[in-house]
Amino acid sequence: MKESGRKLGALSPCAACKLLRRRCAQDCVFAPYFPADEPQKFASVHKVFGASNVNKMLQELPEHQRSDAVSSMVYEANARVRDPVYGCVGAISSLQRQIDSLQTQLALAQAEVVHMRVRQFTSSSNYPGAMDMAVDQATMGESLWSC
Amino acid sequence: MKESGRKLGALSPCAACKLLRRRCAQDCVFAPYFPADEPQKFASVHKVFGASNVNKMLQELPEHQRSDAVSSMVYEANARVRDPVYGCVGAISSLQRQIDSLQTQLALAQAEVVHMRVRQFTSSSNYPGAMDMAVDQATMGESLWSC
Repeated sequence: MKESGRKLGALSPCAACKLLRRRCAQDCVFAPYFPADEPQKFASVHKVFGASNVNKMLQELPEHQRSDAVSSMVYEANARVRDPVYGCVGAISSLQRQIDSLQTQLALAQAEVVHMRVRQFTSSSNYPGAMDMAVDQATMGESLWSC
Repeated sequence: MKESGRKLGALSPCAACKLLRRRCAQDCVFAPYFPADEPQKFASVHKVFGASNVNKMLQELPEHQRSDAVSSMVYEANARVRDPVYGCVGAISSLQRQIDSLQTQLALAQAEVVHMRVRQFTSSSNYPGAMDMAVDQATMGESLWSC
């Protein structure tokens, strides 16, 4: 949490009060999170959520959670400014596609390992039941990866 | 895009106009996306973004993109209502952690396959250069997965 802007008190209004052209009070709810030297942070959340909604959301949270809430709102607002149609939901869809692809690749690699273990074990063993043991050993290995 | 609410015209205001207690005009920007029978959709975006910001964001988009923009705003608003600190940025962090874990598991599985191919090839070959060929063959297989 940046409090540097606050130290100067009424002499230096925070970025929010500066943009809203209002007096920055000693107990301004925005000041600890929107220092005067980072005007873009407040400009984005103001454009997307509106100053009054940001104020309300911060007031409804305990102080120790406000800094994280501001960071996530700034992230969300910047994503919406960059992509007005999908905002950060676009990032969620892209990450979900990446997860689907990784899960497919992992399933293929794990199947390949099971297949190779079975082949390796059966080619080096001639006694009955070797195939069952090989499959057990291969799937034990597989369950270790998922830990 | 749901237009059913619109068919009834002034007789049935859309969910937005109903909540804002205003007359629902024939060309209301909200009506096609916020039908009267789904009041929660507008309530969420109104609470998080504010009606005036939603109006502005829709007006700034061509009509064919507005339905997707409303869906993503409703998703984002619901996430923020459920989790006022992290909103849908919480989902992004969780998906990113899942990707890190899948990438680690995939790297382990691929390393295991390479190791097994090398062992298999060298145990069945005694001529010089068998190791290089085995590694080439193993990494060729690995590059196939990443396609």
